[in-house]
Amino acid sequence: MPINKGFVLASRPQGEASARNFRFFEAPAPRPGAGEVLVRHHYLSLDPYMRGRMDESRSYAASQKLDEVMIGGTVGEVVASNDPGFALGDKVVGQGGWQLYGVARGAELRKLPETRAPIQAFLGALGMPGVTAWHGANRILEPEPGQTLVVSAATGAVGAVVGQLAKARGARVVGIAGGAEKCGHAVNTLGFDACVDHRAPAFEADLAAATPQGIDRLFENVGGAPFRASFRRLNDFGRVAICGLIASYEGAAATTIEDMRLVLVRRIMIQGFIVMDRMEEWPRAIAELAGLAESGKLTWRETIAQGIESAPEAFFGMLKGRNFGKQLVKLI
Amino acid sequence: MPINKGFVLASRPQGEASARNFRFFEAPAPRPGAGEVLVRHHYLSLDPYMRGRMDESRSYAASQKLDEVMIGGTVGEVVASNDPGFALGDKVVGQGGWQLYGVARGAELRKLPETRAPIQAFLGALGMPGVTAWHGANRILEPEPGQTLVVSAATGAVGAVVGQLAKARGARVVGIAGGAEKCGHAVNTLGFDACVDHRAPAFEADLAAATPQGIDRLFENVGGAPFRASFRRLNDFGRVAICGLIASYEGAAATTIEDMRLVLVRRIMIQGFIVMDRMEEWPRAIAELAGLAESGKLTWRETIAQGIESAPEAFFGMLKGRNFGKQLVKLI
Repeated sequence: MPINKGFVLASRPQGEASARNFRFFEAPAPRPGAGEVLVRHHYLSLDPYMRGRMDESRSYAASQKLDEVMIGGTVGEVVASNDPGFALGDKVVGQGGWQLYGVARGAELRKLPETRAPIQAFLGALGMPGVTAWHGANRILEPEPGQTLVVSAATGAVGAVVGQLAKARGARVVGIAGGAEKCGHAVNTLGFDACVDHRAPAFEADLAAATPQGIDRLFENVGGAPFRASFRRLNDFGRVAICGLIASYEGAAATTIEDMRLVLVRRIMIQGFIVMDRMEEWPRAIAELAGLAESGKLTWRETIAQGIESAPEAFFGMLKGRNFGKQLVKLI
Repeated sequence: MPINKGFVLASRPQGEASARNFRFFEAPAPRPGAGEVLVRHHYLSLDPYMRGRMDESRSYAASQKLDEVMIGGTVGEVVASNDPGFALGDKVVGQGGWQLYGVARGAELRKLPETRAPIQAFLGALGMPGVTAWHGANRILEPEPGQTLVVSAATGAVGAVVGQLAKARGARVVGIAGGAEKCGHAVNTLGFDACVDHRAPAFEADLAAATPQGIDRLFENVGGAPFRASFRRLNDFGRVAICGLIASYEGAAATTIEDMRLVLVRRIMIQGFIVMDRMEEWPRAIAELAGLAESGKLTWRETIAQGIESAPEAFFGMLKGRNFGKQLVKLI
């Protein structure tokens, strides 16, 4: 068998996650049992939700277990199969984790459809982050033409898709991102109407200037002070989708709502959501996203770290916003 | 013309409202103009929303104007009519304000349906508070059989109806109220499964004991610390209807959400609402509520202050929870 390499969770972080929380391993690749498939991973997806799983069951899902391979979405190629539904060479997406090879039952894998999109897109705009954006934009926020939608982490894997879907619905889209380069990308490449740098000293005034009619729809990926500033600008019947609170993940101060009276007075709706709750929507969402991508109406950017050994540092960088677009690790 | 008496708003409160904020007046009753009707009010409704209107447009509606008659729902009898749709003696509900007589256009009045319910019920369980409860319970919270619903101000005009509607849907209903007498009423007369006294030192432990399966639905009328305690006990896919935050109305500390991560992790939905936004639902809601009342499945309690002069003190008492059930002022 080939040699497998990867990372297990060695310990739970106190505050910020660090390299000591992971332990590298090297071992023969596992053998697929009856009905199982061995996948050689081409790309590993790094996503903010992983940070929550590292903690002691404070998250929606069970905690990542200690001494087990870190969870993570993967795309790859079938290299051994005991499931008649999968042939050698089939390209599949699954939850293979932070390692070069993974064994899975066929039911845990999804074959990639025929498309011109590169394989790793099924970890990003055509995968879990894309479906997350699709659900939040089209099922929770439902922006109407002319309404102002604000999305934080605007150039991230989810935010970039949210903004483009909202533009397609006719909304005015304002991004929030860290730094001038990301903001330029949001406006010039993703087609947002404006983007505000949350690191700028005049952030609140900039946000007000970019949302002169207030905010009707807020897609929140980050939390913290920018969230509170956006929240204060919500209009009557405003809607808020809570998708992520990365600013509060690393033992930082909790994200709060300072005065619920705003929720009452402005009849605001707030919905926390997790895309895994709506698995039945995935096929439709991915088909729609793939169609938009084929016709050039959906674009995205990637940050690709090279080699499984780089996964921890790439993950820490993503938690600090050092990535630009979807954070991937290339494994082959 | 008969003599009219009532109160205008004399000044805006700094913190707690007080008698100095109102000015009593006595004057000939107004004459109805073309298309108008003169109503002799039998009952005035006192409601928490009035406190918000006294402030400088911090509320959803325009502020109550200074030197104008305090707004308020009224039921009464037509005593002069220039509208062919209204005859002398017709019983009507309207927004007559804190006074004995009011002039209104016919379109601003609603004739009372035939029912055995007393006239003042159309200011309570069969009026605005009842429709508020109906919308929150049946359109926002939609509790399912076996789910746990918590409602604060449980014996109030809104809360009592919320709990009875939720019981009719098969939910386990837990009230929060101030004091043993109100809690006893919630359980013994309104039929709630349990009621927790928010003034008790062991309130949080009592709430936990009364909601052993957590909280699926929260109808919030009060805010403050009991709200935060309820919020922490919300289950996955919990829903929260924000109807009132009376604990934060009088310059007291704002009601907060301490950690939005709970909203994300438990996929919580929060909706602020105001019943006036859904006028199209009123006829159906009132018909259903009247049907329940006729069949003995909806009951309520009233606190009735006597005479227009007592309105300010009754209002202050209601803001402090001294009323027991719907607070009314009898004017005749």
